Amino acid sequence: MAERDLIRAFERILRVRSERVLLASGDDAAVVRAGGVAVTSVDAIVEGVHFELDTHSPGDVGHKALAASLSDLAAMGAEPGEAYVVLGTPASFGESRAIELVEAMESLAERSGVTIAGGDVIAAPALTVSVTVVGWAGGERDLTYRQGAEPGHLVGVTGALGGSMAGLLLLRGADADLDEAERDALLLRHRRPEPQLAVGAALTEAVVGAMIDVSDGIAADAGHIAERSGVSVEVRLGELPLAAGVEAVARAAGRDPLELAASGGDDYELLFTAAPDRRETVESTARAAGVTVTWVGSVSAGAGVRLVGPDGRPVELSGYEHP
Amino acid sequence: MAERDLIRAFERILRVRSERVLLASGDDAAVVRAGGVAVTSVDAIVEGVHFELDTHSPGDVGHKALAASLSDLAAMGAEPGEAYVVLGTPASFGESRAIELVEAMESLAERSGVTIAGGDVIAAPALTVSVTVVGWAGGERDLTYRQGAEPGHLVGVTGALGGSMAGLLLLRGADADLDEAERDALLLRHRRPEPQLAVGAALTEAVVGAMIDVSDGIAADAGHIAERSGVSVEVRLGELPLAAGVEAVARAAGRDPLELAASGGDDYELLFTAAPDRRETVESTARAAGVTVTWVGSVSAGAGVRLVGPDGRPVELSGYEHP
Repeated sequence: MAERDLIRAFERILRVRSERVLLASGDDAAVVRAGGVAVTSVDAIVEGVHFELDTHSPGDVGHKALAASLSDLAAMGAEPGEAYVVLGTPASFGESRAIELVEAMESLAERSGVTIAGGDVIAAPALTVSVTVVGWAGGERDLTYRQGAEPGHLVGVTGALGGSMAGLLLLRGADADLDEAERDALLLRHRRPEPQLAVGAALTEAVVGAMIDVSDGIAADAGHIAERSGVSVEVRLGELPLAAGVEAVARAAGRDPLELAASGGDDYELLFTAAPDRRETVESTARAAGVTVTWVGSVSAGAGVRLVGPDGRPVELSGYEHP
Repeated sequence: MAERDLIRAFERILRVRSERVLLASGDDAAVVRAGGVAVTSVDAIVEGVHFELDTHSPGDVGHKALAASLSDLAAMGAEPGEAYVVLGTPASFGESRAIELVEAMESLAERSGVTIAGGDVIAAPALTVSVTVVGWAGGERDLTYRQGAEPGHLVGVTGALGGSMAGLLLLRGADADLDEAERDALLLRHRRPEPQLAVGAALTEAVVGAMIDVSDGIAADAGHIAERSGVSVEVRLGELPLAAGVEAVARAAGRDPLELAASGGDDYELLFTAAPDRRETVESTARAAGVTVTWVGSVSAGAGVRLVGPDGRPVELSGYEHP
């Protein structure tokens, strides 16, 4: 199938979801009515580096590429807008798998209110999906940055951690005694992570200090907040919310469950800081968005991340920095 | 060198060039003050498919990836704004070549008034550069689309054609008797094509009908205008402006120079239509932008492209459609 025919097949799958989008395909560029501030992030995933096709379906790959980009918009509290996709496929990948990939992307776009408004289809030696997402906000003040953490802030995290890494360990053969529902949930968490767009926007409105998505692991991501805000962030590992089944998988794989929760990336939960007097507002805001929040640490003057073990002693996590 | 260190090295090279850009790096996403309409295009090039590293330097590759995207903005007449870059490199590519690539990109960005405002660096099996560019315009009416061609319009093209393809044939060993300056100009045309941003904006202001950049070859690109506008476009091959040296290279390679001019892509000139009463305005506008314009055809009712040879007879160009 020629590139042009494949592009036409994609155009039949894709829908425009906003009056903002004036021209989505068929010309040299897409045209979108703009206003306020545009919030733009780029992410790419490559077969053999970020995923393997023997554990991820084409649909998983398409979902994950778009989800990773949308998670960056969630971490800014921006309203999701448009996505632009470069799909690089080896000749062996074939037309039906390419269509399955784009259909899964469109399905996530639909649930997120996103329009896939442009793209490029190229030949590549390994399956490569590169996604640019654009979100919108009224102004700079309607966003949450990594730099807003202040001494005295509490550190919170949405949802549960370690699930994506546990799912990966299951795919790699970890033999944990899980019931089927728990196992499926962990696999889904790894293969089809959900960007926390609604809670990111709600937390931004409830005046959070700093925010970031947990893509490198909470320890590394807390480090990004510490660096950009010029503060020290303490994370109490014993209080990290573990996804159901993470302990069993960690045991089966000979790993520490707290390490999975602290250094396992791709959970796509949101890590944030807030002044103590915002505590109840944050909790009720998250509850209204259908999400739990756990308080896992605090911000103080200084620099860097301090990880504290369940016994109250400092912990060094080897390799907690994403390469 | 870890990805994070390479990203920091890039951040030292890159400059912000517009007050529109509020946050260019260091957070989950870039933040840009928006207004009017945003014009967005995505392009990617891959080693072994779109270029070979034995004929293209890392700088040529970086330049070409950005130039191809900016050429789409030129074809819309948009003001260039921001670029977002995904750089995928094999481990063997190394840090100094990655920096050379980004420096060449930044150099073109500087000449074009563009800010490279975000990106991603990943491992990939072959060198891959994916570029999203965003341009800006006051509104939809301040842009030129492919769909604006009307029966009676003249068809014009900027600059000269066939140069990029002739440069490629020289790189592949065509033994043409050229003086050094002519040879260098053709090689430069292939390795470092220039997006026609100034003339694209000027022609849009002078009320052009339809416009497209010559990336697939003028015959195929005229076809895109015909399809989107619902008209027939006639192109007189004998009047195509040939870049200096194209005839000699075509002879040396056993090819028809008109075929090179009509089907050689990547010239990044602009193909456009205009009502006959705009003829002198178009010519003086292009002259003021330092560019020549040649009238090479006409628009009539109907569909498709009609190629007419120098003898006035219809011509079939085999393979004029880009795969």
